[in-house]
Amino acid sequence: MGQVTVLGAGSWGTALAIVLADNGHDVRLWSHRESYVKEINEHHTNEKYLKGVSIPANVKATSNLKQAVSGSKEIVLVVPTKAIRDVCRQLVDVIDTKVTITHASKGIEPETYKRVSEVIKEEIPEELYNAIVVLSGPSHAEEVSLRQPTTVTVSSENLEIAKSVQDLFINRQFRVYTSPDLVGVELGGSLKNIIALGAGISDGLGYGDNAKAALITRGLAEIARLGTSMGANPLTFSGLTGVGDLIVTCTSSHSRNWRAGYKLGQGADLEEVLEDMGMVVEGVRTTKAAYQLSKAEGVEMPITAGIYSVLFEEANPGDVVDQLMTRIRRHEMEDLTNILDEKMKD
Amino acid sequence: MGQVTVLGAGSWGTALAIVLADNGHDVRLWSHRESYVKEINEHHTNEKYLKGVSIPANVKATSNLKQAVSGSKEIVLVVPTKAIRDVCRQLVDVIDTKVTITHASKGIEPETYKRVSEVIKEEIPEELYNAIVVLSGPSHAEEVSLRQPTTVTVSSENLEIAKSVQDLFINRQFRVYTSPDLVGVELGGSLKNIIALGAGISDGLGYGDNAKAALITRGLAEIARLGTSMGANPLTFSGLTGVGDLIVTCTSSHSRNWRAGYKLGQGADLEEVLEDMGMVVEGVRTTKAAYQLSKAEGVEMPITAGIYSVLFEEANPGDVVDQLMTRIRRHEMEDLTNILDEKMKD
Repeated sequence: MGQVTVLGAGSWGTALAIVLADNGHDVRLWSHRESYVKEINEHHTNEKYLKGVSIPANVKATSNLKQAVSGSKEIVLVVPTKAIRDVCRQLVDVIDTKVTITHASKGIEPETYKRVSEVIKEEIPEELYNAIVVLSGPSHAEEVSLRQPTTVTVSSENLEIAKSVQDLFINRQFRVYTSPDLVGVELGGSLKNIIALGAGISDGLGYGDNAKAALITRGLAEIARLGTSMGANPLTFSGLTGVGDLIVTCTSSHSRNWRAGYKLGQGADLEEVLEDMGMVVEGVRTTKAAYQLSKAEGVEMPITAGIYSVLFEEANPGDVVDQLMTRIRRHEMEDLTNILDEKMKD
Repeated sequence: MGQVTVLGAGSWGTALAIVLADNGHDVRLWSHRESYVKEINEHHTNEKYLKGVSIPANVKATSNLKQAVSGSKEIVLVVPTKAIRDVCRQLVDVIDTKVTITHASKGIEPETYKRVSEVIKEEIPEELYNAIVVLSGPSHAEEVSLRQPTTVTVSSENLEIAKSVQDLFINRQFRVYTSPDLVGVELGGSLKNIIALGAGISDGLGYGDNAKAALITRGLAEIARLGTSMGANPLTFSGLTGVGDLIVTCTSSHSRNWRAGYKLGQGADLEEVLEDMGMVVEGVRTTKAAYQLSKAEGVEMPITAGIYSVLFEEANPGDVVDQLMTRIRRHEMEDLTNILDEKMKD
């Protein structure tokens, strides 16, 4: 087993480091915070992000990026989307061998609306890497760190390299599938956070499972619509990185996007919510990006527009959800059929 | 507003009677049990099925089928699937005007593998009805009876009549859509109960949200596969009566199919579970029907086969779920793509 570098020691980065360590790899886990590095190396814990979990001894943390990367052929990037571009710029100076870059960050870059693999491609010269791979799926970090059964998908323009990344991560509890649809896998993981905010808002308002299921279903149709207009295969949204990830994010109190929505539904404003959580809530930025994208691409996204108005225009969450529920579209299938028609033209 | 007859005073029949009463219709609610009839007429409650809910005074219950049906142009059939054929035979003698028959029963008839609308068509002579309509969607009866926001879909071979049924039921909280895919709407509502049993088993075993999301996602793909082979539009499984109903059934403790699965996962055997619940668990019979259908049609349904083996062959639930989670299929999209290919041939 070789050396693998994981960049980012949040809950998901740490959980993936544990999977790789379980598979016998020497894992270097980079964090820019010295206090986390110290805790991981001395106490084999990361209490802020994975409470009560013991980290295997073959995970060594460092705050020195050059040391973290030196000699690694496999780099796994798990930093918040807004930090991706900056970390990639730093990587250019320290990569010392041709690497495979796998990212597990779910988001769209604000302003540029770029997917994470596009940002990486822009910042890291082609000669430094074999391929860029995305790893995504229905996976709460907490459960992965407890070795509970979990499935994820890896995808890349280079399917052979995606398979090598599958081999790196797969074990009895952590099941890894491959998909040829890089665009769809990246967009599903990002856009579902918008719908998770919406499901949280509905729950926070005290609405029931019926309302939430309707929001999730209509939300899935609308993110598939945007995704398809951006080049994804619509079927990817019916898979693990689409509906699977959406379900796990919308129906679990583990999810920070759902939690943020829940607080908004209960009447908190965005600033309070973000302060309270003390963690990145990717869905907030993704909502802004998707809202602007839907305008630019002429794609109808009523749920995203409603959540945008709650987040950034002080709209009343109750009014917004009521409006969404009473929107009449006599034929449920209209938009789904349009997606298939689009697909058939390809 | 006219007179509408609801046949079946279980939780869903009673909740739909409340929706119709809220819309100003005179509702006749039929139950074969005299004690329920008495309770509804005297106390305006149905405590066994809708605890704490007050039933409007314009719902009148009767145990006399002839009285229930007399003069009604709208019949709503909400009895367990296994009772459908028998109730239809009784109806033939008492229908006294041309009716629209809407059913809201989720199941497939054991042995014959017929959908509910097919059974109705076989038993009731064509000259007695305008059309057969199905009403289905993500809808816990308890929440509907509390006027919580809910969406459902109606479908029929006669879309104009489906629209008239939409008008009958729609109100501010109860949103009704139409779909042209009768087969898909009926099958989605039935087959999802199998996956709900599976989700319950996973939860009962103590597995987490990641495992459950994987089961639901893979389960959705497999019921869409069977549905498509039986003539449904695969996209219907991405809508309210597919993924929507699946989510509400798999993630809520209201669901009796989920509850039955949960108890099986905790080690109870089928007989105990059914005895404990004292209610119909449609998913048990549907699993048998779908398992046999998948054999007959040559459709691969590993989750259904696994649940069948737990229900009827005393397989260990833990072994079955572990096997399902570790099944290797390198390309997640294989089967989804096959569905689309099939559809494109049409």
